[in-house]
This record gives sequence, C-alpha cells and structure tokens, in this order.
Amino acid sequence: MSLESKLKELGITLPEAPKPVAAYVPAVTSRGQVIVSGQLPMQNGELICTGKVPSQVSIEDAQAAARQCVLNGLAVLKAELNGDLSRLVRVVRIGVFVQSDDNFFAQPQVANGASEFLLELLDEAGRHARAAVGVNALPLDASVEVEFTFEVN
Amino acid sequence: MSLESKLKELGITLPEAPKPVAAYVPAVTSRGQVIVSGQLPMQNGELICTGKVPSQVSIEDAQAAARQCVLNGLAVLKAELNGDLSRLVRVVRIGVFVQSDDNFFAQPQVANGASEFLLELLDEAGRHARAAVGVNALPLDASVEVEFTFEVN
Amino acid sequence: MSLESKLKELGITLPEAPKPVAAYVPAVTSRGQVIVSGQLPMQNGELICTGKVPSQVSIEDAQAAARQCVLNGLAVLKAELNGDLSRLVRVVRIGVFVQSDDNFFAQPQVANGASEFLLELLDEAGRHARAAVGVNALPLDASVEVEFTFEVN
Repeated sequence: MSLESKLKELGITLPEAPKPVAAYVPAVTSRGQVIVSGQLPMQNGELICTGKVPSQVSIEDAQAAARQCVLNGLAVLKAELNGDLSRLVRVVRIGVFVQSDDNFFAQPQVANGASEFLLELLDEAGRHARAAVGVNALPLDASVEVEFTFEVN
Repeated sequence: MSLESKLKELGITLPEAPKPVAAYVPAVTSRGQVIVSGQLPMQNGELICTGKVPSQVSIEDAQAAARQCVLNGLAVLKAELNGDLSRLVRVVRIGVFVQSDDNFFAQPQVANGASEFLLELLDEAGRHARAAVGVNALPLDASVEVEFTFEVN
Repeated sequence: MSLESKLKELGITLPEAPKPVAAYVPAVTSRGQVIVSGQLPMQNGELICTGKVPSQVSIEDAQAAARQCVLNGLAVLKAELNGDLSRLVRVVRIGVFVQSDDNFFAQPQVANGASEFLLELLDEAGRHARAAVGVNALPLDASVEVEFTFEVN
C-alpha cells in the first residue's frame, strides 16, 4: 500500500512542512537521498512536548513527541518531492536525540515512538538504521529531535 | 591482507551480530553504502561497560568499550553483506558518543579505541572521518555508542 | 561567483587544514560526497572558544566559534579536493553540537553562526540541511563542533 493510502486509511493528514527555526533549509536532495533537517515536535506552530525525560515529561509523552517529529519529517519530504511521495524508496536512517536527565537511559524506548510509526506507515520500506542518544539540552527546550535520511528515485 | 585474514591473524572471531534493542534494523544498504545503527559495547548479550567517563568508568575501559562497538559494527556489516566482507571498500565515517561527566573533555582519546582498531584491522581502507562528542546519557547506561557508514561494492 | 572569488572579496584566507586531534582523517570522499570530520573552533592551532554556553561563553562568541568551524571545514574540503574548490556542488548537511548548560535552549542561534556564513560564502550552493543539538561536553572543552557533508563532482 502506498504511503498516501496508508495515511488516508489511518485518518492522518500530513501537516504543513514546518519551517526551519533558523538559517538553513528543511531538506536537501543529494545523490539519490533526501536529507531532512532535525525535526522538533511542532504541531500547528507550537511545541507539543518540552523538558527533560523523565523528570519534566513522561516517556509516553516523549514517544508521542517522537511520532510528531516523524509526521513533520514526512511533511518536509513530501514538500521536497513536490508532493510526490511515491518517489520514496525507503527510510535509510534516523538520528534521535532525547533531552534526558543525567540518570535516564531508556532513549531506545522513546525513539521507538518514531521507529514503530515509520514501520506502521511504510512496512518494509520503513525499516531503518538508527542512532539514539541522550543529550542535556535541545533547541527551544524540545524533548526530542529527529533527523532523517530517505532514499528516493 | 583481507579483513577476514587480518581477523584470523589477530585471533579475533567476530561475534554474532547484536540484535537492535528496539524497533529498527541493524543496518541498511543505500546508494553503495551500508549504514550501521548505533552500536553499544555488548558482548555475549551483556554490556561490558556502563556509566559516565571518568567518574564511573576509566578512560581505558571506555576505550575497550569503543573497540567492542567496532567488533559489533563489523559483525553487523558482515551479516548485511551475507557474510562476504570482501565487498567492503572502506570505512567512510564513524560517529562516537561518549557518556561524559560535565567536566570531561577527552572524548577523542576514548574514540581512538574505535579509530585505532579500525586502522589496525583495515589499514588504508580503515581511515575514516569522525565526529566524537560527549553526551550526558546513553541507552542502557552504556559508556560509548558508535555508529558507522561503510562504502561497499 | 566562485567560492574562491567570494573569499577573496571578503578578504578571507582559508587557514591550513587543521590536523585531526586523533587517529582518523580530516575527510573522506565516497559516492560523490566529501564527509568532513567534526571541526573544532581552532585558529592557528589553538581553540578560540571553550566552555559551556552561556555560563562560560556568550552566545555571540559561540557564534563566532561556529563560523571558525566553517572556515576549518572549508580548508579541509579544499585539501581533500587537491586545492580545487570549483568541484564543490553544494553543502548537503551540517551537524552542529553546542556545549550547553542544562537550561540553555538557543542552539539554533549558535548554529546560525555556521549556517549564515555558508549562505554568505556560497549563496544557493550553501543552503544545507542541519541538525543542531546541545551536549554537556565536547573535545578539548570546545564550545562548538561542526561536521559537514558536501556534494562534489
């Protein structure tokens, strides 16, 4: 099933591609891949999840934030492909940064909010390599940031 | 000398490729490169090195952990290549994350545990670009995480 | 205008390509891209900016450090291209790590020191994807580290 069909089946509308918060572009296409800039859990122009995991935000909320980052990443991809998501071959890699307390070590659990959503949306084409790490601070106090590499034709 | 021969000469047996700790895959091949997910210092299914450098783990132990990450990364690469390591052209890049105390700044020394081992195993083909940074937390309290990009044919 | 001409117009001389601080190489060319290792704000062999933002170093100084990382990255690129910067097609991605206090969330502002300089030097070819994150520690206590992916022909 195509990604567009799957989104429709799930009743999901991709958001407008979020604008970068600074002097760079949302995505670059190079050598058959689209590199998408680090996405924050923005929804309608506002962050849905801020603070450190788990003292300021729960693992569950951070997982939902990671899922929102995926929606935003796919919105950016769609814009980069001039609306034609059928050119997506597969997800290659995601980098997941989790704003973490010093003694929080379940970053994979948070990052699964992104990974499992990609698998749900794209099946085999959604299977990706991943690096998930904790950091002490993220832009705008976001709890999660996700960057993406997609293969396209 | 081939990587397989070098490993044999050094008496090193690659481990079974570690399973990812979450909903993603160990490696993806795209556009002539293999992207290997962030590897932790797992050995026989257990972490050999946890905690922050240097208050909870020594630089020497963290270097050994980085070396173990390389073994695991090569095991994942071999599995991705269906056992044929001769398809490896070169190491392109490694990303090294060191779980660090706030006042620890010798991440390059720790990361050298990975870099020097790659040079030893692969000579010219092991020369790689690198980004090494400190972070306040890593999955499962691992002291080091290393991700890899390999060029393959 | 070519990058060399633009540098001349601005009165900027690229530094000698900084040597890596450890057992890896400054850059690797693979599949039509040059991957440049994480650059620190070195100038004439010394760091121009150390400490955490903003308690130990101002945002403005960190921005200048990010700009210095760009100069060093371009110097590495030039060396990798045997002096011929005309082979540069575009900047694909930069990864920016800012050594941050736990409550500092303006990493994009710091990273703009790098992004805006790339745009100034390269116009359209300087537009790039970006991931900017905070970390609690960086090599040699540097305030900023920037890694680069360039497309070349």
